[in-house]
Amino acid sequence: MTAKEPEIIRDKDQMRKWSRAMRSQGKTIGLVPTMGYLHAGHVSLIREAHNHSDVIVVSIYVNPGQFSPSEDLSTYPSDFHGDIQKLRAVPGGVDVVFNPHNLYDYGTNPNCTNTSTSTSNGEEMKLESCVEEKGLGHETWVRVVRLEKGMCGKSRPVFFRGVATVVTKLFNIVEPDVALFGKKDYQQWRIIQRMVRDLDFSIRVIGSEVVRESDGLAMSSRNVRLSPEEREKALSINKSLSRARFSAEKGQISCKELIDLVIQAINEAGGRVDYAEIIDQDSLETVEEIRSPVVFCVAAWFGKVRLIDNMEISV
Amino acid sequence: MTAKEPEIIRDKDQMRKWSRAMRSQGKTIGLVPTMGYLHAGHVSLIREAHNHSDVIVVSIYVNPGQFSPSEDLSTYPSDFHGDIQKLRAVPGGVDVVFNPHNLYDYGTNPNCTNTSTSTSNGEEMKLESCVEEKGLGHETWVRVVRLEKGMCGKSRPVFFRGVATVVTKLFNIVEPDVALFGKKDYQQWRIIQRMVRDLDFSIRVIGSEVVRESDGLAMSSRNVRLSPEEREKALSINKSLSRARFSAEKGQISCKELIDLVIQAINEAGGRVDYAEIIDQDSLETVEEIRSPVVFCVAAWFGKVRLIDNMEISV
Repeated sequence: MTAKEPEIIRDKDQMRKWSRAMRSQGKTIGLVPTMGYLHAGHVSLIREAHNHSDVIVVSIYVNPGQFSPSEDLSTYPSDFHGDIQKLRAVPGGVDVVFNPHNLYDYGTNPNCTNTSTSTSNGEEMKLESCVEEKGLGHETWVRVVRLEKGMCGKSRPVFFRGVATVVTKLFNIVEPDVALFGKKDYQQWRIIQRMVRDLDFSIRVIGSEVVRESDGLAMSSRNVRLSPEEREKALSINKSLSRARFSAEKGQISCKELIDLVIQAINEAGGRVDYAEIIDQDSLETVEEIRSPVVFCVAAWFGKVRLIDNMEISV
Repeated sequence: MTAKEPEIIRDKDQMRKWSRAMRSQGKTIGLVPTMGYLHAGHVSLIREAHNHSDVIVVSIYVNPGQFSPSEDLSTYPSDFHGDIQKLRAVPGGVDVVFNPHNLYDYGTNPNCTNTSTSTSNGEEMKLESCVEEKGLGHETWVRVVRLEKGMCGKSRPVFFRGVATVVTKLFNIVEPDVALFGKKDYQQWRIIQRMVRDLDFSIRVIGSEVVRESDGLAMSSRNVRLSPEEREKALSINKSLSRARFSAEKGQISCKELIDLVIQAINEAGGRVDYAEIIDQDSLETVEEIRSPVVFCVAAWFGKVRLIDNMEISV
């Protein structure tokens, strides 16, 4: 098979025009939203997308709306040229790479990078993202109010409203029939599913299994920022999660026991646990004993890099 | 011209299918969202819609998501049969009436009427609507965070998130090219415009001028609930707004003076002012002096009925 050259589209209107032309030809459109710096996990999503749609759009956009000013927006890795090379090599290829410059620039603000924001109402006071939110700038946010609260939402208060909002924008621009998300970002996947249901998007959301390096580390664009030592230590996440699952399958139903096991292993390896929770797969509420399908979710810091991972446990 | 019989659609999927069939025929779709109990103001929106689209969908749905449990959801007037009669009589007619039963029922909750809600996070604690928001029930809300704060947002804290959310749902179900809103609900119109911009909906939002009874009272479905005496008193809103605009046109630029004039007139008539504000037409921020296009917005109670009205002033 010869490599397929993806068309690169940067303009919203042109993107939508392309999708509508495809739809008018009876073709279904699959969207794989990414922030670039593609790895085998993304490739797995694209391969999965080929099972569900006729043509495939991969968006590459580092979304400032999901980063707080104190987070790693400015150091988030990127390699557009390398990404295109990888996309050429995907079996079946990719039809379009949607790579917009700034999805929050409406021609009203000269400067769309936020440095500090405060709003008049105390309720929202603590919520600040890297998007300009003053004057006539961007101000609409999609909130999935229960699912966004826990886990990553606790330590990253603007994260999921930023994700839900940019995905809504991408859905409205690309108008896909199917959208694919990695289950490595489990909470994100569930939030997008809930949002699609609650806002009546006519889009099928498909979650794709976690893809791991040969040693078990979950694929992430952030892995590249780990030193060799940190990378070695980070294996403690996957290893301890696997042990916890094994233990659960052998009859250990106490979540406290299982969580202690994981926290201890990560601490001993030199990581710093942000959270380790065993939650219901639908409601994402914590459970005390494993009596229905759950997922064990972990976030931990190794040096300056925060990694997440999870494992579904169905006993 | 013979009366056109609108097709009544109650199912979301059927609605979307109809719209897509129209689009595939190259026809543009206009949406007029209403809560029913139609009056001349709605008819004016529909007539305007005929100028912008080939086919017209009128939605009739009293949205529980924009009412708090203490508001008038249960007494909101309705007359579906009368509404259909009126729609038949509109010149050019209406193609579809979309009249869903419950847009928040996803098959997860036996009971979708909220009586009390509390969430785990203090931030959202005060926000309660008449939609079930527990367990796996509806939990996604669209917030236009600056424009929703003032005026009607102050006294009705869940109102605009409910409006923005149901309009998003209707947009995703009906997939219109054009949507029409009355400028009588000025803040709502601006919020929808901002939301469409920020979420990249491919929909043109058109604001239609306030339609008034022959004596000047702004048309509203709630007017029917005024006693004859209250209705007479309610004219004080329109009359005093007209006087304020005349005064501004004659050179009075002090908003305090103009606002005092309106508050005094409504008080003297026996009404109770909720707010009277002169605001910038785009940012909806209050101004002290009229030096650019503004709108004078008023909400006031007459008996148990809360009415709103406004007048644009461009000096």
